[in-house]
Amino acid sequence: MPHLTQIKVRGYHLDIYQHVNNARYLEFLEEARWSYLEDAGDVAFFAEMHLAWVIVNININYRQAATNGQTLNIATQFSKIGGKSAVIHQVISIAGSDVVVADADITFVCLDQRTGKAVAIDGELLARLSTHLTD
Amino acid sequence: MPHLTQIKVRGYHLDIYQHVNNARYLEFLEEARWSYLEDAGDVAFFAEMHLAWVIVNININYRQAATNGQTLNIATQFSKIGGKSAVIHQVISIAGSDVVVADADITFVCLDQRTGKAVAIDGELLARLSTHLTD
Amino acid sequence: MPHLTQIKVRGYHLDIYQHVNNARYLEFLEEARWSYLEDAGDVAFFAEMHLAWVIVNININYRQAATNGQTLNIATQFSKIGGKSAVIHQVISIAGSDVVVADADITFVCLDQRTGKAVAIDGELLARLSTHLTD
Amino acid sequence: MPHLTQIKVRGYHLDIYQHVNNARYLEFLEEARWSYLEDAGDVAFFAEMHLAWVIVNININYRQAATNGQTLNIATQFSKIGGKSAVIHQVISIAGSDVVVADADITFVCLDQRTGKAVAIDGELLARLSTHLTD
Repeated sequence: MPHLTQIKVRGYHLDIYQHVNNARYLEFLEEARWSYLEDAGDVAFFAEMHLAWVIVNININYRQAATNGQTLNIATQFSKIGGKSAVIHQVISIAGSDVVVADADITFVCLDQRTGKAVAIDGELLARLSTHLTD
Repeated sequence: MPHLTQIKVRGYHLDIYQHVNNARYLEFLEEARWSYLEDAGDVAFFAEMHLAWVIVNININYRQAATNGQTLNIATQFSKIGGKSAVIHQVISIAGSDVVVADADITFVCLDQRTGKAVAIDGELLARLSTHLTD
Repeated sequence: MPHLTQIKVRGYHLDIYQHVNNARYLEFLEEARWSYLEDAGDVAFFAEMHLAWVIVNININYRQAATNGQTLNIATQFSKIGGKSAVIHQVISIAGSDVVVADADITFVCLDQRTGKAVAIDGELLARLSTHLTD
Repeated sequence: MPHLTQIKVRGYHLDIYQHVNNARYLEFLEEARWSYLEDAGDVAFFAEMHLAWVIVNININYRQAATNGQTLNIATQFSKIGGKSAVIHQVISIAGSDVVVADADITFVCLDQRTGKAVAIDGELLARLSTHLTD
């Protein structure tokens, strides 16, 4: 089951087209990822390992406009763990409906903050991230 | 030749990692697109045609972190015009260097604001957009 | 009793000083005001009256830095209703403590969206807003 | 003569009322202050002294709405230097007109980043800041 975050669309999220602006969605997605990682205990785990999440790609589809007053559900889950990077899949939909507003794949690497380099995803780190695939 | 926009990175563009935040880049890209479309006369053309740009996909690679005080060059050009959608390719690099910070493909459709529907890219609209491919 | 909204500080709220950026607080305050007005039924009331809230002054004190991971309580209440304008007082504090991060007075007028002019706060509008002073 | 910064209003600066959002103005003001301090050589001076600007109050009047496509002039100048704090006055107007969109007083202290405490504005620091009053 994906992790769920809710965000209510407000007037300051909109732009000239009266829809949520394309850049604002990335903040919504980031909010949902932090909420997920915090709930899963990963924020603390990563801090201890001196690892930072560094995003290397975001591929986002904007499927339907969201407007003022709507409540958005953001579903967040890991979809793939590779040798050096992992992918989180996120779907934004309008609460109480099947309408998908946007969906995105977020690809990131784990950066060792002491060396400034991405680390291989193996050992303890792989074990940790793998638990998310079967959540 | 792609259109060029310059943006200087400021303290308020950064996030907890002291790098420009992933969402902020989409604002930089949007700034560059408006600047391009304005310089090209397209803002006026689209307003007259009652057409709005609606983004359907953004695929962005984050290649290198940008930090406070750096000046960014944003190169913007059309890369593809299809039957219903078109693609703008944008590359963000650090001024005075070859370092690419990010590059992105922005896919959009042209929405008729009177019907709320995407229009086919043909006729006068196709002619107009096509001039950008050979800029 | 003031209305309460909670916001958790995330990495993307911070700036180069690793504190919540001064501009971001205005979004936090706006979020809290919409939440308050919605809970109070005022959003619907104002829409029916064709009135928009237009801010004419914000006076905000930044008293203490807020950082990543802290939960902020935002207390919102009307503090004054005048002949043409009203004031909402908001206090941001760190949850579970007495530490005040920021406090602000937001002065606004009520704009008639059909005439584009601020209206006098009297009659039905005054009665409505006055209920907030004794909440 | 105050320092001048120009910003063009874009679609992503607007909110539900189709005007520049109140929080966005604080980013415009911050952009103008960084530009001013950089042009004056103060960014380098402050870095050497291990001093950070910390805003303690912003008092901003919103006088007129700004909308898409307008170019804004932001005039920035020091207006007061006290024993522990200083004030920068900023006026945002529409280019090519006398229309003032907003004006603000920004009060800040100078924080010693090694002690985390505000320093007295005297000696070399006072001399430096005082040059701005007679610019």
